[in-house]
Amino acid sequence: MKKDSLQAFEIQRFSNGEKKIINDLLSVEEPLGIKIKFRNTLHDISVTMRTPGQDRALAIGFLFTEGIIQSYSDILSIEGNIEDSSVIVELHPELNWHKDKFQRNFYTTSSCGVCGKASIDAVKIACPIVVPQKKWKVKSSIVLELPKRLRDAQESFDFSGGIHASALFSLDAELIDIKEDVGRHNALDKLIGGQLIKQNIPMFNEILVLSGRGSFELVQKAAMAGIRFIACVGAPSSLAVELAEEYDITVIGFLKTDRFNVYSGFDRVDFP
Amino acid sequence: MKKDSLQAFEIQRFSNGEKKIINDLLSVEEPLGIKIKFRNTLHDISVTMRTPGQDRALAIGFLFTEGIIQSYSDILSIEGNIEDSSVIVELHPELNWHKDKFQRNFYTTSSCGVCGKASIDAVKIACPIVVPQKKWKVKSSIVLELPKRLRDAQESFDFSGGIHASALFSLDAELIDIKEDVGRHNALDKLIGGQLIKQNIPMFNEILVLSGRGSFELVQKAAMAGIRFIACVGAPSSLAVELAEEYDITVIGFLKTDRFNVYSGFDRVDFP
Repeated sequence: MKKDSLQAFEIQRFSNGEKKIINDLLSVEEPLGIKIKFRNTLHDISVTMRTPGQDRALAIGFLFTEGIIQSYSDILSIEGNIEDSSVIVELHPELNWHKDKFQRNFYTTSSCGVCGKASIDAVKIACPIVVPQKKWKVKSSIVLELPKRLRDAQESFDFSGGIHASALFSLDAELIDIKEDVGRHNALDKLIGGQLIKQNIPMFNEILVLSGRGSFELVQKAAMAGIRFIACVGAPSSLAVELAEEYDITVIGFLKTDRFNVYSGFDRVDFP
Repeated sequence: MKKDSLQAFEIQRFSNGEKKIINDLLSVEEPLGIKIKFRNTLHDISVTMRTPGQDRALAIGFLFTEGIIQSYSDILSIEGNIEDSSVIVELHPELNWHKDKFQRNFYTTSSCGVCGKASIDAVKIACPIVVPQKKWKVKSSIVLELPKRLRDAQESFDFSGGIHASALFSLDAELIDIKEDVGRHNALDKLIGGQLIKQNIPMFNEILVLSGRGSFELVQKAAMAGIRFIACVGAPSSLAVELAEEYDITVIGFLKTDRFNVYSGFDRVDFP
């Protein structure tokens, strides 16, 4: 992790009845503007509070998981603007895009009223379900390996302690990539954006590990990227599990080194 | 917590090398639409993924922390619409409000470019700094009491394990109110909305306890409500601490029963 993702502060630590003044590192949280350039016109799309670093991957991942681009070839150029902390993504002029069509978080702005069912339906329109060719299983012993491997990969965690991670593993628990951010949706967008650049989408044969809870938004992003196996260190939400059931995504929660829960897609876990 | 904030799922639990099928309760995550009725016209303002319950407090707290209303008397009526999961807040017709003025998360949409400094400046415009009359101190022994009292108050935590809490305590650690949600910003909006209804704003003499990390957004909401003492179980972000310094807000992080860190507003903590 780059150094500008951590910032030093002089703080007071109270421990064992004693106060000490120490230097501590905090995760940096700064706004990033995401802009689209389309047929020579610039459009403001979003501003997100993120940890600096991997800004281009974040912007690309965001545009992909919001359904604005379908592949890396939809992008003509990517330009970072340090002066106003923004990334400008130039879309291919032949793309069928119009700003009015775009609504942030399309799945919560369904015109037919808002409810969990409507949110799931909106995701299904943006991301039709494609059945992967092979149905594999992951041994429970491999699943139990993941928390330690995630922790090992979270280099900066020991310094700041305040950051979310999204990590991608192969089916035998080899680390493929990891991204961190103060916002868990940003960490996942960075991860997916990075894989889109490498043209490794859809990710039908990978394991996604999330350092925190599994929300609807995170499962929605994973579904867009074709991911079929999500292991969360924390708890999933009800709507996250319901969406996972629709997409036949395996969701594991409360992942520890000696135990875990399976909430959906049960047949992908191979128990002893 | 109401029952519809938890939903039962049949899951598989793997523990001690053994798989069991059990019933588990997950935190419910469902969209809520927030609408404003102003001079007989209805405006869609926001859709948020939240845990059902306290929807009116959530809507009011959101409108307050976004700077749309300044007091409970700005509201003419509040109406819940179960059919499309929305809350309609009717604003007083004499209010100086126009939809075009409203941008979600005003602090990240400053026209002068986006950066941490600009975000803090935007908060300061929406929420001028008012110095409280008295400057009090909280004993470190009282601070160390807070995690247990928060945990005791989080009734539903033992069931779902996947929910954020915002709790309000008096300066001697007596619980005033607690709200829970899958989204930590929602939990705080519910808490602030509830206090606005009771006309207990600004909250210059209360302690806010957050069950998770302290982000910029949470400190911004607390600042809007006049809160001067925030204790987070997790880590604060860099920008959260910088904003707290501007408002002379005490921020405590990594709060445990035997230790904590102080990041800002040091003179409000009374060490032995």
